[in-house]
Amino acid sequence: MKIGVAIVKKKRNINPSKTLVLGFAILILVGATLLSLPAATENGEGLPFLKALFTATSATCVTGLVVVDTGSTFSLFGELVILSLIQIGGLGFMTFASFVFMLLGKRISLKERLVLKEAINLNDFTGIGILVRRILLFTGVIEFSGALLLAIRFSYDMPIGKAIYYGVFHSISNFNNAGFDLLGGFHSLTSYVDDPVIVLTICALITLGGIGFIVMNDLYEYRKTRKLSLHTKIMLITSISLTLFGTIAIYLLELGNTKTFGPLSPLGQVLGALFQSVTSRTAGANTLPIGDLTHATLLIMMFLMFIGGGSGSTAGGIKVTTFVVLLATVWSQIKGREDIVIFKKRLVKEIVFKAFTVAMCGFAIVAFVTFILSITDTGHHFIMYLFEATSAFGTVGLTMGLTTELSPIGQLLIILTMFAGRLGPLTIGIAITRRRQKETFHRPKGNIMIG
Amino acid sequence: MKIGVAIVKKKRNINPSKTLVLGFAILILVGATLLSLPAATENGEGLPFLKALFTATSATCVTGLVVVDTGSTFSLFGELVILSLIQIGGLGFMTFASFVFMLLGKRISLKERLVLKEAINLNDFTGIGILVRRILLFTGVIEFSGALLLAIRFSYDMPIGKAIYYGVFHSISNFNNAGFDLLGGFHSLTSYVDDPVIVLTICALITLGGIGFIVMNDLYEYRKTRKLSLHTKIMLITSISLTLFGTIAIYLLELGNTKTFGPLSPLGQVLGALFQSVTSRTAGANTLPIGDLTHATLLIMMFLMFIGGGSGSTAGGIKVTTFVVLLATVWSQIKGREDIVIFKKRLVKEIVFKAFTVAMCGFAIVAFVTFILSITDTGHHFIMYLFEATSAFGTVGLTMGLTTELSPIGQLLIILTMFAGRLGPLTIGIAITRRRQKETFHRPKGNIMIG
Ligand SMILES: [K+]
Ligand SMILES: [K+]
Repeated sequence: MKIGVAIVKKKRNINPSKTLVLGFAILILVGATLLSLPAATENGEGLPFLKALFTATSATCVTGLVVVDTGSTFSLFGELVILSLIQIGGLGFMTFASFVFMLLGKRISLKERLVLKEAINLNDFTGIGILVRRILLFTGVIEFSGALLLAIRFSYDMPIGKAIYYGVFHSISNFNNAGFDLLGGFHSLTSYVDDPVIVLTICALITLGGIGFIVMNDLYEYRKTRKLSLHTKIMLITSISLTLFGTIAIYLLELGNTKTFGPLSPLGQVLGALFQSVTSRTAGANTLPIGDLTHATLLIMMFLMFIGGGSGSTAGGIKVTTFVVLLATVWSQIKGREDIVIFKKRLVKEIVFKAFTVAMCGFAIVAFVTFILSITDTGHHFIMYLFEATSAFGTVGLTMGLTTELSPIGQLLIILTMFAGRLGPLTIGIAITRRRQKETFHRPKGNIMIG
Repeated sequence: MKIGVAIVKKKRNINPSKTLVLGFAILILVGATLLSLPAATENGEGLPFLKALFTATSATCVTGLVVVDTGSTFSLFGELVILSLIQIGGLGFMTFASFVFMLLGKRISLKERLVLKEAINLNDFTGIGILVRRILLFTGVIEFSGALLLAIRFSYDMPIGKAIYYGVFHSISNFNNAGFDLLGGFHSLTSYVDDPVIVLTICALITLGGIGFIVMNDLYEYRKTRKLSLHTKIMLITSISLTLFGTIAIYLLELGNTKTFGPLSPLGQVLGALFQSVTSRTAGANTLPIGDLTHATLLIMMFLMFIGGGSGSTAGGIKVTTFVVLLATVWSQIKGREDIVIFKKRLVKEIVFKAFTVAMCGFAIVAFVTFILSITDTGHHFIMYLFEATSAFGTVGLTMGLTTELSPIGQLLIILTMFAGRLGPLTIGIAITRRRQKETFHRPKGNIMIG
């Protein structure tokens, strides 16, 4: 803790948002350059730069929207570049966000050490070294276990070497909520829709990656501490609720849909609904054909996609805590309470305003991107624009089929949206926390009529 | 002012929200019963009750969505019932909202009389009598002027008696932002798209009705006071900006659209864009064919429809001030300011939370209604559900053609949405303001990770 504070004091002139944005931009550009090399593609021609840039952005921002089919287009080298971008992008973001949260948390709350300590149970971390080591430990153990299970299952369908490679690739891709796959033909995991091993393993990888380091660490420390932080409690309860809600809703809404549930066994239908519920937040693989889902299911999925996963996780979206703060605020207001209370804890005004700003910017970005897409890429159904914009903002990677049909301007727009969707919420959070300063004088109060 | 306070003290046990909801429900039921009488329709058979209920709700909530064509379905008696519902619903709401705002404004701000006085310039109103008289004066003068201009113009196309009746009907309908018309075939005002007299007169009626009594009164008093309230300044600047933005955007987005702008002269194109911009907030008449507009234009219109007009006006939506407070909050947050400042005035936390709650409930209602419509009324384009839900919530009355095709459950849903859209934002505002009470004890602060 002392070292953390020391670092802030020493490097006060370093802007963490700028570091993050610059780091990601450089990583994406290096990736795009590598992917446009002849060696990166199977046909030896390399990818046009815009498509390479799209793929590199999608991988680094762990989105999974693709303009070319990953498995059949890229050489082993190209696939390893993508896998590296996913791992660096996912892990880097998780580390950075958790670190910044620790530092900024301390910074705004120098007088409130106890609150922060209780909020994230990070009192053991006295510096970035331990934090990074712990994140690497979690990531390593989880990705290894996932790869093992997947490789065993894949070995029934393919040679053992390929099965291991597929196991590693899909474990890393899904723990990082990246949504990339090697199975070909843009079909994602649809051929494994009723396979419990694949479905449940990948659901577990996605969920662990998407819940965030703070929560994983809190659960890991539970043996010692015997208590969970407010953040962890909110994350666990809300994540489970959202997943169950999504599964039940999608199951009920697709029951009569012959195009999706028609060919499936009852088990396959349940697994399919579960998988689409989990993957909407915001992993991006799919086992059901997205373009054939009912409008109602697509709306449920867009709702889940917009919320996304945990702060400081590999998932995107406005984040679960943001959503919960919105809910709590509206509920407190309607009940006429002065304080916004969650789990017997009062949320300070600053957190409410931050959540509100993140959500509003999210709405604005999705609406704006949908608007521009409907101009630059005419001739599609409206819901395809909305779904694509939500998917890109939430770094989800699901598509109704628009991605491969995008015009160059549309591709550029989605590239920017993935970037903004991945870095935006955290950057806004940092900007708000960092720059907030007590006003030297307060303006007189004004009153206006609302509602 | 003293009488106002006295009224609050005496009638503290009366719940204004309940009065409002009950009053509207009774008015709607009476209207529906009258419209289902044989004498109400031209064919002498009366309307089925559900359709009568839909029409009565649409008229009372000044929406304008119709399941039957007003002009060709109803007898003179039926049309006068509709006109009465519009006038009572529109005027009643405007009076009630302005009155409640005065009272509640006083109630929360007993210590802040000066603030409120400056906020709405209502210091001359010592009781509801003067308020009602002034509202009736404004309404009478504006509706009479509108009727006169319209009747003169209509007299070129029809016998003078019919022209006067049409002038009166369309003046009242449009000042109340009701969106009903007698011109037949669900065509609304499309045949007058390039007629400057009709277009500009109706735009003026809509704008005056939708800006709200507080602003009208403030402008009226300007001769004496020589200053405008914060509320009025915000309303004027934002209303003009939104109208200009809508006009320019719609004009540019429809320029290449042969179905809408194709048959029009350059003047007709400008007038058409202006009219659709004005009418989206939330009058509901149309001169361009809504179903043929581009997706981008429809999005712009949904944006305007959701925002709507002024508080305590005949318009619906979340209201202009709510939108401005959202904007100001996000802007202040991103700039790292502690206070939310508009026109050098600081907004108290309560106003921000109220605006935020109204907006979130609005989003939730629109999303929920879109979701249910996509289940109960399958087989349409997704944007038709979204547009219909936004239109009903905003009490706009524009439709892409879904209204007449609605299933009975869909009709019931839209009835409820119009009701919630008309009364919801104000009711939420009242509930929040009334019940807010200082907490007797504050929970300990909690911290969680956002973004
Ligand atoms: K993803
Ligand atoms: K209307």
